[in-house]
Amino acid sequence: MRIRQYVLDLMREHRNTDVSILSERELCRKFGVTRPTARKALKALIEEDYLYVKPGRGMFVRAERLEAAPVRRFKRIMVVIGDGGLSCMDGFFMSVLEKLCGTLKHLPVHLQVVPLDVDHDCAVAEIEMYNPDGILWVRPGEKGKKLIGELREKIPVVTLGLVPDGDPYAVTCDYTEAGRLSAQWFRSRALKKIVFLQDRPGAIRESVYNGWRSAFPGYDESLHYRDRTQENEQSSVRELVAFLESRKIDGIFTFASYYPVLDAALKQTGKTGIPILSDNNYCNFYQVATLPSVELRMFPSEVPEAAAKLMFRILIDPGFKPKKEKVIRPGIRDFPPPGTS
Amino acid sequence: MRIRQYVLDLMREHRNTDVSILSERELCRKFGVTRPTARKALKALIEEDYLYVKPGRGMFVRAERLEAAPVRRFKRIMVVIGDGGLSCMDGFFMSVLEKLCGTLKHLPVHLQVVPLDVDHDCAVAEIEMYNPDGILWVRPGEKGKKLIGELREKIPVVTLGLVPDGDPYAVTCDYTEAGRLSAQWFRSRALKKIVFLQDRPGAIRESVYNGWRSAFPGYDESLHYRDRTQENEQSSVRELVAFLESRKIDGIFTFASYYPVLDAALKQTGKTGIPILSDNNYCNFYQVATLPSVELRMFPSEVPEAAAKLMFRILIDPGFKPKKEKVIRPGIRDFPPPGTS
Repeated sequence: MRIRQYVLDLMREHRNTDVSILSERELCRKFGVTRPTARKALKALIEEDYLYVKPGRGMFVRAERLEAAPVRRFKRIMVVIGDGGLSCMDGFFMSVLEKLCGTLKHLPVHLQVVPLDVDHDCAVAEIEMYNPDGILWVRPGEKGKKLIGELREKIPVVTLGLVPDGDPYAVTCDYTEAGRLSAQWFRSRALKKIVFLQDRPGAIRESVYNGWRSAFPGYDESLHYRDRTQENEQSSVRELVAFLESRKIDGIFTFASYYPVLDAALKQTGKTGIPILSDNNYCNFYQVATLPSVELRMFPSEVPEAAAKLMFRILIDPGFKPKKEKVIRPGIRDFPPPGTS
Repeated sequence: MRIRQYVLDLMREHRNTDVSILSERELCRKFGVTRPTARKALKALIEEDYLYVKPGRGMFVRAERLEAAPVRRFKRIMVVIGDGGLSCMDGFFMSVLEKLCGTLKHLPVHLQVVPLDVDHDCAVAEIEMYNPDGILWVRPGEKGKKLIGELREKIPVVTLGLVPDGDPYAVTCDYTEAGRLSAQWFRSRALKKIVFLQDRPGAIRESVYNGWRSAFPGYDESLHYRDRTQENEQSSVRELVAFLESRKIDGIFTFASYYPVLDAALKQTGKTGIPILSDNNYCNFYQVATLPSVELRMFPSEVPEAAAKLMFRILIDPGFKPKKEKVIRPGIRDFPPPGTS
C-alpha cells in the first residue's frame, strides 16, 4: 500500500512527466517490505497502467494516467522545528506540538514530525521523499528561513512564532506588545526597580526588550542583566547572585529558559519574596523552589491553533491566499500551578 | 554544544570504556556545523581532558573523567509509532502524541519523535545515535516487538495500547471489556439486531469481538460483517450497502477507521437514524453526514498520560521496577461534537 501511495504521489507531483521510480531494491529498503511484496505491488500498478517498464532503465510512472488515480483523502502536513535538524523538543516545542495535534486530529490530515538533515541539499531531498502537501515550521533559524524561500515556490510553508514582518503565511504574536504588557504590569503595582533578566539574545528577546523600554520610561538601565550564558550553570548562578545582591530589587522579569538559574540564585540570596513575571516553558518550572507570580503568555496556544487552521484552509481551498500576517495578542495571567510537580 | 553533548553522552553510556568518537568529518555532517566549529568544540573537550587523541586512530573519550562531567538535567524520551518506520500520524496517533506532549511538557524531559529505519540493524544504529534514556512505543508491530525485546536489555521501553499480556512495562486498556461494554450499551436499550462492522482484522479487534460475544449471548452471527478492505473505497461502500440493505438492523457497532465507508453506505441506503457506537479516531469524523450517537473510549487519554508518567518515574528512580501491567478501563460516553467541523 505504501509503495502504491508513493507511486501515485510521484505521479501527482510531476504532473506531466513520466518520472522514474526507485528501484525494487530501494523500495524494499525504504518501505521495509520484502522483495515479493514489492514485486506484487509493482505488478498491480503495471497492470493498471500507472507504471511501465523501460527496458534497462527501470520503471516509470505514466503521467497521462494521472486523472484515473484515486484522490488522496488526507492532506499531509509536515512539522519542522527550529533549524530543522532538531530532534529534541523541550517544553515549549511540546506545547506547540500538543496544540497542533489537538487541532489537526479532527481534520483529514496526516502529520509528519521529522528532523531534517541540516545540510541544504539533503533537507530538500528529504522533504521531496516525505512529499508533504504543506509545512508548518516552528521558529525557523537562518538556514530554515533560506530554505523556506525556495520551498514556497512549490508548496505552502506557514511559519510560527517569528518576529512579525508582514509575511501573510506567518502566524505569530506581538513580542513588542509582550514587553509593553510586562512593563505595565509592574508599573500598575508601583514596582519600580525591576530587573530585566535575559540570557540568550536574539530577535525575539530584542523585540520584547524594546516594548519593555517603551512602556517603562524611567527604567533603570543598570537593572538590565544579560547573562553571558556560560556553559557551566554554576558560574551563571554565581554571577547572578552577585548581581542580585548588589541591588535593591522590587520585581523580576525573566524568560522561562533562564528560570532554573534564577531559581538557584534566589535560593542562595534568600530573596524569594520578590514578584516574578516570566513567560512559560513548562518544563523549566519543574520542582523550582520559587514559582513565578504571573505568566506572560508570549506565545499563546492560539498561535499553533491558528497556524494549523490556516495551513488546512490553504490546502483544501486552492483559491485561498492569506492577505496579512496573523499576529495573536499576548496576555498576562496569574501563574497556574503546574499540572505535574 | 551538540558535539559536547554527544561526547558527554557517549561517556555516560559506555561508563568504563574509552570508546572512540565520530570523525571530525562525520561530526560536521551529523550536527550540521562547519569544520572550524567542530574543531573548536573538540579542542575544548581535549583541554578539559574529556577527550584524547590516539594518533592514527582518532579521538577517544576518557572514561575516568566521567565523574567530572556535568549532570544532564533533561531526560530524553523517544516516541516511536507502530512499526517504527511510520512517518505519517493519523488522528489516533495525533491524539496520543497530544497527550504525551501535554504530560511531558511539565517535566524535565526532551522528546524525540523520529521515524526509525524499518531495517533491524539500521533501527538499532539510529536509536544508538539519538541515544534516548527511554522509549515510549505506541502499538508496536511484530518487528517492533522483536526489537523491543533487545532494546530492553539496555534501556526501558514502555509500550502503549497492545493487547494486555502481563508485561509490567506496558500501559494499555482492556479491549475485551470494551467489547463487553459496547454489547451492554445496546442490550440495555433492548436493541437486538446489531451489526458488528469490522475492517482490518488484528489482535485488538479480536479481543473486542470476544468481549462483545461474551456479553451478547443471543448475538446473530450473520450480523458480523468483515470488510475485505478493498483498496478502492467505492467497492467497499457497494459491498456494505448490499449487506445493510439485506437485513433488518437496530444498531451498528463500528470502528472509526471504517467510519468514512459506513457514512457513505448509510447515505446510499438512507438508513441514517440507526444508533451507532464507534470508537474515536477524530479525523475520520470530519464532515461525515451521520455522526455516531455514542463514543467507545477504547483508548482513553489516561493511557498516554499514565505511560508518560510511568516512563518518567522509571527514569528518575533507578530503584523503581513496575510490578504489573497498567490496564486502563475503557468507557462509553455520548459523542461530543467535534471541536472543528
